[in-house]
Amino acid sequence: MNNQITRRNLLKLLGVSGVTLPLTGISKELDIKPNKSLQNDGVIKLSSNENPYGPSPKVREAIINAFDEACRYPYGRVAELEKKIAQREGVDPSMVLVTGGSNEGLRATGRLFGVEKKEIIACKPTYLALMTYAEEFDCKINWVPLDENLRYDLNEISRRTSKNTSMVFICNPNNPTGTMLQAKDLEDFCAASAKKTCVFVDEAYYDYSINDGYPTMTKLVKAGHNVIVSRTFSKIYGLAGVRIGYLIANPERIDELKKCTMAGTNILATHAAMTAYDEKSFFNYSLSKNKEALELLYSAFDELGLEYVNSYTNFAFFKTGIHIDKFSEHFKDKGILVGRPFPPYYDWCRISTGKIEDIRRFTDVLKNYYS
Amino acid sequence: MNNQITRRNLLKLLGVSGVTLPLTGISKELDIKPNKSLQNDGVIKLSSNENPYGPSPKVREAIINAFDEACRYPYGRVAELEKKIAQREGVDPSMVLVTGGSNEGLRATGRLFGVEKKEIIACKPTYLALMTYAEEFDCKINWVPLDENLRYDLNEISRRTSKNTSMVFICNPNNPTGTMLQAKDLEDFCAASAKKTCVFVDEAYYDYSINDGYPTMTKLVKAGHNVIVSRTFSKIYGLAGVRIGYLIANPERIDELKKCTMAGTNILATHAAMTAYDEKSFFNYSLSKNKEALELLYSAFDELGLEYVNSYTNFAFFKTGIHIDKFSEHFKDKGILVGRPFPPYYDWCRISTGKIEDIRRFTDVLKNYYS
Repeated sequence: MNNQITRRNLLKLLGVSGVTLPLTGISKELDIKPNKSLQNDGVIKLSSNENPYGPSPKVREAIINAFDEACRYPYGRVAELEKKIAQREGVDPSMVLVTGGSNEGLRATGRLFGVEKKEIIACKPTYLALMTYAEEFDCKINWVPLDENLRYDLNEISRRTSKNTSMVFICNPNNPTGTMLQAKDLEDFCAASAKKTCVFVDEAYYDYSINDGYPTMTKLVKAGHNVIVSRTFSKIYGLAGVRIGYLIANPERIDELKKCTMAGTNILATHAAMTAYDEKSFFNYSLSKNKEALELLYSAFDELGLEYVNSYTNFAFFKTGIHIDKFSEHFKDKGILVGRPFPPYYDWCRISTGKIEDIRRFTDVLKNYYS
Repeated sequence: MNNQITRRNLLKLLGVSGVTLPLTGISKELDIKPNKSLQNDGVIKLSSNENPYGPSPKVREAIINAFDEACRYPYGRVAELEKKIAQREGVDPSMVLVTGGSNEGLRATGRLFGVEKKEIIACKPTYLALMTYAEEFDCKINWVPLDENLRYDLNEISRRTSKNTSMVFICNPNNPTGTMLQAKDLEDFCAASAKKTCVFVDEAYYDYSINDGYPTMTKLVKAGHNVIVSRTFSKIYGLAGVRIGYLIANPERIDELKKCTMAGTNILATHAAMTAYDEKSFFNYSLSKNKEALELLYSAFDELGLEYVNSYTNFAFFKTGIHIDKFSEHFKDKGILVGRPFPPYYDWCRISTGKIEDIRRFTDVLKNYYS
């Protein structure tokens, strides 16, 4: 059993390739650097709302420290993480379910409500995973258009809610538009709607909006309302590939949803999340780099006179004026991947934030495109 | 953004704590060592059929090399792994679906067939994930007892198969009994049954039986039969915590099953699996350590006159003569976790192989228990 370990690989451990590590007492303070090698070599990926700065060096270290456990099933560690999240959120651990990305939480919910012979109400465009899964059970989705500000239309959803409604789905801030509802409006809506049906609030981009007065709807879960909240470590924590997220709901609902899940998360992800959850410095770093990137995008849109929406997320939504298929084809040719089509907004584009140099490259190509 | 990296943690990278690494040209050949720190500190875990020797140093290195990608969604890498598995198995990539452990594959199948208003036939005891998921849809399971050799009773399953059968589930080698069906018998059974219904063959322990003439049922998938095969990287590859497995079936079935999955695997797992899949040396090492552990167990059972079954897996099933609850309680008090109850075999116990010193500790406690 021989395995060769190269020095180069050893040094890649913390994304420090090319750096000479001190050979004794290694405690060099490392700056976070954008990842050097990403999946689409040579291609700038601004299509999936990922955070190119993750995982942080500390999180990488946590994963390495967990290697000895990687032969073990993760259930014990998952329970520990659920306890930690519960503590931070001020709920009982029985009200938290850690999942394989928030996607698994969304789909498990789609599974639970999809089999009911009722309908789910959601706006369009939005993040579709829950509804797509529910539709496999021939569940009807009652699609509501966004309002004139590209926000969830709470009044219209309320108007359509009936005893035939099994669930209302809200994504706030909304993907792909980046819009956010007023705190008070959403809270009042959820409290009222939850008396009639279950309300699901997808808070995948919650972390990007915390400075903008968005109150998580977990307070309603705590208050006993029929509400489910989902969160993810894929975005601001930069762990999209690691697959870990969670749901917060009342204990009976969590029990039901747990039976609906299929894969759960993995043990390296639990350690990564444990560390990331406590690492305020990386969180703030990601927040500020995201803001920097958004401002570069806004300034280019302004210069070109392109309509766009103020974003509370790690992406911007702007009006290209031409069909997204044609637009994205052009950018793909230039080595840049942009967001997929979001019907009915075919002449709009979702562009993720990314490394600053990648955003600059995007705005350069954009300016050339419209010149 | 500062993060301190300690020397100790750097050295833990490949499970070499305490070893002085050469400071230039690190290419020391490392022996595989049992993991030092495992989840249940101080407790010997022989309850979940894990492989305590994984992940191999090479696999750990592959995970580290993938850190820069951990901020990216894993879909591209999953497709690469599916292609690699397809090539090895001699099927088209459209016939492979990589899942979050084989559990997700089992549950996705339980979801697909569970909604049919028909029944699934399976033996008991066996690995229950597929059936438990299907039962959530009020799917009826037609449970068939194992035969007198604690093997799947193919004749009785055939006898019960009707147009009301949506699926036959086979686990071979079977968990928790460790028994294996004769190659020719199973092949004939599957070919005949697949004309009437879908046949699912769970091959989680396949790798442990390859020297014993077990032919994987993928040859039947290749020949166009209505068969689904599941495999996992959790066992001989020592990656249970990493969550990765796969299904092999015809392309239409794979499409259906893909829509049923919820989480999928993660990007670190795809890199781990890619490397593990090619690393014959670690595979053979695990196989031989498993054999060594099984022989120690058999020899203790023989000495004590305890009935047991010849195992084609990484666990042994033996008759304790007392209720498993009482038996496992005693061993838990001695710091050893044994398998859960497997009704109706309440006076039998499933014991996983583990590190040789842990198996010795188990057989010591066992001998004291019966003396």
